[in-house]
Amino acid sequence: MIFGQILDPQSFTYTYVVAKRPGGEALLIDPVLENTKQYVSLIDQLDFKLVIAVDTHTHDDHITALGALRGLTNCATAMGEMTKADCVSVRFSDNDKLRIDDIHLQILYTPGHTEDSYSFLMADRVFTGDTLLIRDTGRTDFHNGDPAAQYDSLFGKLLKLPTETLVFPAHDYNGMTVSTIGEEMRYNPRLQVADKQAYIDLMHSHNEPYSRDLTASAKRSCGYKSAA
Amino acid sequence: MIFGQILDPQSFTYTYVVAKRPGGEALLIDPVLENTKQYVSLIDQLDFKLVIAVDTHTHDDHITALGALRGLTNCATAMGEMTKADCVSVRFSDNDKLRIDDIHLQILYTPGHTEDSYSFLMADRVFTGDTLLIRDTGRTDFHNGDPAAQYDSLFGKLLKLPTETLVFPAHDYNGMTVSTIGEEMRYNPRLQVADKQAYIDLMHSHNEPYSRDLTASAKRSCGYKSAA
Repeated sequence: MIFGQILDPQSFTYTYVVAKRPGGEALLIDPVLENTKQYVSLIDQLDFKLVIAVDTHTHDDHITALGALRGLTNCATAMGEMTKADCVSVRFSDNDKLRIDDIHLQILYTPGHTEDSYSFLMADRVFTGDTLLIRDTGRTDFHNGDPAAQYDSLFGKLLKLPTETLVFPAHDYNGMTVSTIGEEMRYNPRLQVADKQAYIDLMHSHNEPYSRDLTASAKRSCGYKSAA
Repeated sequence: MIFGQILDPQSFTYTYVVAKRPGGEALLIDPVLENTKQYVSLIDQLDFKLVIAVDTHTHDDHITALGALRGLTNCATAMGEMTKADCVSVRFSDNDKLRIDDIHLQILYTPGHTEDSYSFLMADRVFTGDTLLIRDTGRTDFHNGDPAAQYDSLFGKLLKLPTETLVFPAHDYNGMTVSTIGEEMRYNPRLQVADKQAYIDLMHSHNEPYSRDLTASAKRSCGYKSAA
């Protein structure tokens, strides 16, 4: 398997490229609009064919490149069935699989940061979006965020994966690139809670500033300008 | 092998942590002073014992954490024999090996960016410092930089490694985390030159601004404040 991790230096978003082999199919996870040319150039240089671009959830800190990539490469654009984005050609549900060549991504519905948050399990690693970050979890204080749902996603799903599973999140603001489920169980300060109510109380105690002012129409249209 | 890549979000330096197993020895490559606590905390959480901290070269854009790490952990601090830094407990030469548990780093002397630039070959990957960057090469216009020497380091050493060798540089300013020797041979614009003179001319055509004003004494003393 060929695996790449690309940082967007503005929003500290991680975009992932996955492929089986040169000449084969590729999948992009959480691409950022401003970096579209960089992805297309890299995929071309590595001799991949981009077949799917997928977002873990509707991002609030950057505009997705899904729309632009579909326009440039004719790839499928995939998000979960709970999304309100209108540019999506494939909508997946909990326990569905996305496939490129013989690589499978198992979909885990992991709401909490947003209602349309999903994680993707692929062999030895899981892409956790903003549900599970390295030593952190995604904010739940806007856009139908729900700390109770996030607790269930974390403790009921992600933390039940094997402890050695590699964790690749959608962001890191401290320069960390990877973690494991075991590390997060032991050392993530937000996961050291006695029960669901303690997690809800912890999340309600945070008041984070908004990061970027993105219009709802830009998010819904996957980066295309609204006609309105 | 356990392998970590940590970004310093100020200088876009990559620091690498390498270890064989929990409970075993660890090595840090190109640690940044401001992040010392982060490294020590991570190494503690992963149950490693830091035995060596090493710099690929004397950095001009950040202060190394070698001195601070030696003070906190009693680790060895290693740089090449060409360095002028005075806090170094191990000085290595071309073709030497650094060892932790049964992991070997073979030293390659790759001057050009600075006179004291070295690369480290470890199994399937090479740490290239500022000699070979992703789609770029390190500037050669200050601190005894020498484009002719860099040409020899690149074409005479690094590009002779197997094409599938993973390339982990000391920096990336575009969010890329890894490349391969084969990719760089084909797509690095600075390596598409006819001969050494063409490379020298190309490097002389660049005029880059200085990034940070670090005192020579801070660099020589590996981050400790000068007594003067």
